[in-house]
Amino acid sequence: MTDEQLDKYRSSIDNIDAALVHLLAERFKVTQEVGRYKASVGLPAADPAREDRQVERLRALAEESGLDPVFSEKFLRFIVAEVIHHHQRIAEEGPCGAGADPTA
Amino acid sequence: MTDEQLDKYRSSIDNIDAALVHLLAERFKVTQEVGRYKASVGLPAADPAREDRQVERLRALAEESGLDPVFSEKFLRFIVAEVIHHHQRIAEEGPCGAGADPTA
Repeated sequence: MTDEQLDKYRSSIDNIDAALVHLLAERFKVTQEVGRYKASVGLPAADPAREDRQVERLRALAEESGLDPVFSEKFLRFIVAEVIHHHQRIAEEGPCGAGADPTA
Repeated sequence: MTDEQLDKYRSSIDNIDAALVHLLAERFKVTQEVGRYKASVGLPAADPAREDRQVERLRALAEESGLDPVFSEKFLRFIVAEVIHHHQRIAEEGPCGAGADPTA
């Protein structure tokens, strides 16, 4: 094995990372819509029951695909924390963004 | 908008999450190979210069795809922390896994 070998591994990692970033961008597009929807109907940003169902499902998918299920849960919590942070900002700013009447 | 709307959003999120889990499983397969390789040639688990290059690249990809670049950096650091943890375990256990001669 040479450093060529390391470069080969890293090129695969870089490809996977590009795919992950693009998927995450899509995921946040959807959750921003959810945030606006929740703010418009007055639903709270967090939904612990939904989160528990997601954790269960992702742990099962992780086992299937050879990912550490503990990591899959850590990963979901990490993403959800960011999403809730976004939702809270949307709820504070109003569904139309900064400048929306906070008393509306 | 009804709860049907929320269910629709959630179904998209669930699909994206399944894709993310499978990509992460692939990514860890590659980094486990890297960990074994690094342990076999005595390279350290962490490589801060490589990590800086990855952060720069992912921030650019994030901007392109509409993801918050700050989040893309947090995301990479989160993944890399897990990978380094794996590499250290491999280095301690030896490239052949638990039970390998630690004095070899």
